[in-house]
Amino acid sequence: MEFKEIVMNRYATKKFDGKKIPQEKVNELLEMIRYAPSSSNMQPWKIKVITDQKIKEKLSPASWNQAQITSCSHLLVFCADTDLDKHIEKLIKMLPDAKEYYTGLKAGFDKMTTEQKLSWAQRQLFLALGNAINGAKSLGFDSCPMEGFSPEEYSKILNLPKNLVPTALCPIGYAADTPRPKMRFKKEEVFF
Amino acid sequence: MEFKEIVMNRYATKKFDGKKIPQEKVNELLEMIRYAPSSSNMQPWKIKVITDQKIKEKLSPASWNQAQITSCSHLLVFCADTDLDKHIEKLIKMLPDAKEYYTGLKAGFDKMTTEQKLSWAQRQLFLALGNAINGAKSLGFDSCPMEGFSPEEYSKILNLPKNLVPTALCPIGYAADTPRPKMRFKKEEVFF
Repeated sequence: MEFKEIVMNRYATKKFDGKKIPQEKVNELLEMIRYAPSSSNMQPWKIKVITDQKIKEKLSPASWNQAQITSCSHLLVFCADTDLDKHIEKLIKMLPDAKEYYTGLKAGFDKMTTEQKLSWAQRQLFLALGNAINGAKSLGFDSCPMEGFSPEEYSKILNLPKNLVPTALCPIGYAADTPRPKMRFKKEEVFF
Repeated sequence: MEFKEIVMNRYATKKFDGKKIPQEKVNELLEMIRYAPSSSNMQPWKIKVITDQKIKEKLSPASWNQAQITSCSHLLVFCADTDLDKHIEKLIKMLPDAKEYYTGLKAGFDKMTTEQKLSWAQRQLFLALGNAINGAKSLGFDSCPMEGFSPEEYSKILNLPKNLVPTALCPIGYAADTPRPKMRFKKEEVFF
């Protein structure tokens, strides 16, 4: 499927049919997410992959009981990882030649507030989320990017360490609803 | 080109060959960007499309003289649009049935600080940026997502209204460099 078709045909699926996506397809999707770009290749994210129906049911009220959570095949919880120092350490180990670059980058992060670091990590994460959404369609299944949930409740239920901040959900599965026509602002309202 | 190939073959191009991308291809890319998803379909972005070499040269020092800015075919400046009230008004006009939904959404935004609203708009913008990056590759040219520039200087040079905050650059064109091997954290470090 051409990328253009993916963009025009994917949609935020509100209900899935409950069928499981074959694990090998899920693995392909995870690779597309893992290879998403990020600023300075920092990859400031971790993604919890949930298949256990009982956990999905526990999370449901923390996501306003939206039907995607319990009807999906796999629920991906995209967490921003705010432990940027650890990421920098790992990158320097992988790329010793870039030590100076990453040391400078660390100095920049050190000047940022906790909230600024989180925002920065969260926006990188949306590149990975985008790959999940488009990747799902490319592999023949559907997805729904979601911000309508309680990050605090998710943290508690999933017992997440403090550095991980649940930022977006992406349930994946096979759609059991039909898309509404796509509606966007006009070209001349977007580009200038 | 399959999406998987796009993900694996795109890279942050550091130098372009200066050739112009045919306008019809650029228009296709802009459509892929325009149809990017965003939370509640808010599309909180505006994108400045720059082809004028003189303006690119003016912007070059405000982007640490990185070669992408002056060697690209088109420079896309992704701006977060923080005038969320106006977006909500427009969406209600387009979708009168969703008036109640968007009125509730507005109440939520009204509780957020200016900084929180900006962060939220900026992370949505990264979905549009992702479509630009992947879309460019799908159309046979290259791109470079960039955060290394001065938003303040860009605002001044481009004379942007206060509600538009330059957040990411995406020069597009034909690569004149070669990609380095892709390096990512291991699967087991990313998914849990």
